[in-house]
Order: sequence, then structure tokens, then C-alpha cells
Amino acid sequence: MQKPSKSSKKEEKTIKTNVVYAGIILSVNCDDVLAPNGLHVKREIVHHNGGVCILAMQDNKIAFVKQFRYAYGEEMFELPAGKLEKGEDSYHAGIRELEEEVGLKAESLTSFGSMYPSCGYTNEIIYLYKANNVTKVDRHLDADEDIDVYYFTLDEVIKMISDNIIKDAKTICLVFKYLNSIK
Amino acid sequence: MQKPSKSSKKEEKTIKTNVVYAGIILSVNCDDVLAPNGLHVKREIVHHNGGVCILAMQDNKIAFVKQFRYAYGEEMFELPAGKLEKGEDSYHAGIRELEEEVGLKAESLTSFGSMYPSCGYTNEIIYLYKANNVTKVDRHLDADEDIDVYYFTLDEVIKMISDNIIKDAKTICLVFKYLNSIK
Repeated sequence: MQKPSKSSKKEEKTIKTNVVYAGIILSVNCDDVLAPNGLHVKREIVHHNGGVCILAMQDNKIAFVKQFRYAYGEEMFELPAGKLEKGEDSYHAGIRELEEEVGLKAESLTSFGSMYPSCGYTNEIIYLYKANNVTKVDRHLDADEDIDVYYFTLDEVIKMISDNIIKDAKTICLVFKYLNSIK
Repeated sequence: MQKPSKSSKKEEKTIKTNVVYAGIILSVNCDDVLAPNGLHVKREIVHHNGGVCILAMQDNKIAFVKQFRYAYGEEMFELPAGKLEKGEDSYHAGIRELEEEVGLKAESLTSFGSMYPSCGYTNEIIYLYKANNVTKVDRHLDADEDIDVYYFTLDEVIKMISDNIIKDAKTICLVFKYLNSIK
């Protein structure tokens, strides 16, 4: 692999933190920042507690959820996922979300690392897992959740991604990492 | 493929739009929303103009950029990318960003659809392209950009994704879609 032989580590330093919105699931800072080249810049950053996403299979099919996403005004296919509660670790959040949204209880989860959804302006980290040895249990949706469950084969999922039917980033990332692991 | 035979399309309807932050690269709404089950809920949505990401190859290696990302306090490897200017279409933004950040001029771009980075709270759409027939030109970075360029083989990139060195969502999504297209 090409060795990074260029400039030493560059860092943008916080001069002043300014909270411009303190909300329910997110807050926003507009910080005064010193760039490595000496320039003073503003950085608007959405602060988010993080999320978790799980790939779970039953009878060789992958569990998907379909729900209306207000941000886009459309229904979307996604792998089961959810926000981390304050102080909650991603592993237990993953077990919880899979049970609540899909009605599958995992014996354990295998980590597939994490992904950064949009690194220019949000600090959210989404943790990715594969569920192992799942069994069916009851679902427990949140009051504002309206979610349908589907099962697709891996080939169907890959085609839906290629056809731009699946557009959700965490879903595409986790499917890719899972595929890499089984080659 | 399993036919979606469950409930008809569900939609969350806007009762009232509330702009809680109007910023430089983003704004935030906290809308009053009517959920399909009749519940009144709040939806906090980051409004963003969108982005573009390009996979460009020279001598069989893929062009990457490395830059400090303030949101995470770390330097990250990403495919060349950028924000859409107001009214700018993604195709021309892609040509522009590739020239400015990497110093590669593409004869044309092939679309690989789009991805939604974090569908729970941002409406950003990131358009994905592969560059065709590139030639070297001068770079033109923005005043606040401090970006180094690297070239990696596809195998190196896949390994960096598996090893959680590449965590950037748009990068992972576009690499996956490109891989699917050449199988």
C-alpha cells in the first residue's frame, strides 16, 4: 500500500464552541475554528448520540424494515436500526432494536466496525453488527414507529442496491462488509 | 422477490414547519407532524443542499483524498466529493470537485445513483458517479481546504474498508456499487 509520506497530521482547532440549537435527538454547534493554514473558519456540526444497524438472517433471508422517512417524504427499505439512548452501548442497543423492530432475538452480535454517515457536518457514528443464532419473539415498536418487516435473499438485496431501490447508507455499508466477510 | 402486500403507503404529514436554525451550509427544522397512527410527533430535520462523490481511476488505481474532519477530530480517507452549490446539478458538481480536489479532468461521468446518509434526521442526498477517461490538470482547492491525494488499488480499498480504516459512508457505498457493476 502507498505509504502516506506527505504532510504531518493536520488538525483544525476549536477557538470557540457555540451551541446554536439544542434539540431532542440532535443539537447543532457553529464553532469558530483555526484551520492548519492559519485561516479562521466556521464549522457547523450536528451532534448526535450515534446509531446501530444489524444484519440478521432467518432461513437464509435478511430481515429488512420498511418505514416512512419524513426527511425524504418517502418509504425506505433499511436494515433494522436505531438511535443509541444516552449512555447506551451499541452492542446492547443492537440486540434491543432487533427485538423491538423485527421480533428477532439474537444470541450474540458480531461487530462489523462502524461508519460515518456524512463527515462534513455530523459527528454521528453508526455501529454495524451481524446477528448470530436468531429466534423469533414478539415485536415492541415505539409509539411513533410504524414499521413493516420484509425478508430478502442476499442476491435480491444486491440487486435492489444496484437498482437504487435501497438508498440507505448504513444498509449498503453493512451489506458490503458482510459480503466481504463471506467471500 | 417478495411482493410488498402489507399496509398501503403510510405518510407522515406536516402540520407546521418550524425553522430552528438557519445556517451557512445547513438549516434545521423542528416540524410538528401527524403520524399515520394519528399521533402528533416532532421531527427534527437537517436541511442540506446535497453532495456528490466520484470514483476516478488512473493507471488502475482509485483516487482518494485525505483531510481532517472537524466533526470527528480525525483525518479520514474519502473518495473525492463536495457539496452542491445552490442550483448546481450533481453532474457538473462532480466534474468540478474532481478537478479542484484531485487535479483530474473527466471526459464524462457515469451515474451510480444516490445514497441517503442518515435518513432519520437529514434530507441530504449524495449523488454517486464514476469518472471516465481522466487526464491530469492543476488542482484548485477552496481557501479552507487542506487535502492530500492518494491512489490505491481496488484490493487495497476493499481491505481498508474491511479493516475499518475507511469509515466514510459515501465512499463505501460508491465502491460497492462500482464493484457490483464490474462483476
